[in-house]
Amino acid sequence: MRAIRALAFDVFGTVVDWRGSIIAEGPALERECGLPSIDWPRFADAWRAGYTPAMDRVRRGELPWLKIDQLHRMILDGLLRDFGLAGLSEAALDHLNRVWHRLRPWPDSVPGLTRLQRRFVITTLSNGNMSLLVNMARNAGLPWDCVISAELFRHYKPDPETYRGCAELLDVAPGELLMVASHKSDLRAAKRVGLRIAFVRRPMEFGSSATADLKAEADFDFNADSIEELAALLSDHA
Amino acid sequence: MRAIRALAFDVFGTVVDWRGSIIAEGPALERECGLPSIDWPRFADAWRAGYTPAMDRVRRGELPWLKIDQLHRMILDGLLRDFGLAGLSEAALDHLNRVWHRLRPWPDSVPGLTRLQRRFVITTLSNGNMSLLVNMARNAGLPWDCVISAELFRHYKPDPETYRGCAELLDVAPGELLMVASHKSDLRAAKRVGLRIAFVRRPMEFGSSATADLKAEADFDFNADSIEELAALLSDHA
Repeated sequence: MRAIRALAFDVFGTVVDWRGSIIAEGPALERECGLPSIDWPRFADAWRAGYTPAMDRVRRGELPWLKIDQLHRMILDGLLRDFGLAGLSEAALDHLNRVWHRLRPWPDSVPGLTRLQRRFVITTLSNGNMSLLVNMARNAGLPWDCVISAELFRHYKPDPETYRGCAELLDVAPGELLMVASHKSDLRAAKRVGLRIAFVRRPMEFGSSATADLKAEADFDFNADSIEELAALLSDHA
Repeated sequence: MRAIRALAFDVFGTVVDWRGSIIAEGPALERECGLPSIDWPRFADAWRAGYTPAMDRVRRGELPWLKIDQLHRMILDGLLRDFGLAGLSEAALDHLNRVWHRLRPWPDSVPGLTRLQRRFVITTLSNGNMSLLVNMARNAGLPWDCVISAELFRHYKPDPETYRGCAELLDVAPGELLMVASHKSDLRAAKRVGLRIAFVRRPMEFGSSATADLKAEADFDFNADSIEELAALLSDHA
């Protein structure tokens, strides 16, 4: 078994709390734009629910290649009327759309990444576009060695081109690259092309009333409750 | 005139001292590998001199796309006999080839970049491959927001695809991106596709006996003697 040399992180959900961050920005937007009271948890869930279908439209060729910023905006535009947001100015909509650049890390993310970075190259491997991930890292203090996005491959995860492309750019064998994610589908796709995989449970990603699949899996290389725990599990890795 | 939002840095020569770093590693290699005394300054110059012709062979289609690590190794292999390095083991040659991953920054680079990063997105825009630039940043403590390499575009600088591709990934207009380099040809190519340009003089890049073109140019947006001076020049930028 080769030693792990680099770690690639899923970002939305695994490193940052997209749902909590969107909900947290809601009241300020209501105040500044004179909006009625909006159901932000339901809005966040609806926005996120549009994401996989939107990527699938690109995969099927119904849409050209688009950055996630553009997909997010397309989905947002379709939600405005239902959620009482139809009166927002273009500037306010653009600001709201960029909430994804301002997502807040889970409490263990920055300390965990900082610890892992001492021994391993750490990168994003996210469907978020490059500028989104760069702005997020600056806002949240995420200490990436580099930012790798699906945008570089013009394929979204879980397409195999993304995992293979990440290993190729880092100049490591697939088996030397550990994919870290809170979503099992992402991990299983990474494993199919030879990456090692680490599951980080995020029970609150979809809110307290959602039922997430948090079961540890014997065929995963690591199962952890946080990025800090993952750092501890990797601390005696050869 | 649009405000500058991001800075893209040439790396070899502009941020790190490739020649001094290669020369500095020489004596250790001689000791560890039992080599005779080698003319390291002449060796460093010969290695670097092979770089542009090697990229031109890729441009003409005589070679497939290659990472700079591979070009460096090809050039190195051609120099071994002339410089008394023919007896090196494969492991020693690979280590020597990766000296480019260990290049040392000029003294002003880290403080200058750290200051610039407070206000601007800072990235590499280098012909060095991604893993080379990532390893260099880790070794040298270069605080990039992201690492952008010619490898992402399969075009080396000064091909226009590299400058345009960098602006596109950062999601800024060409006029919002400032290219920073110690080589005027790099800057003029960036300007042709609409980037702003900043010249940083590196009189010692090619050694004390070389005659570098250090003249400030009126059609450059900035002329500076260091990255720290560039940070000062940009400090009152709107």
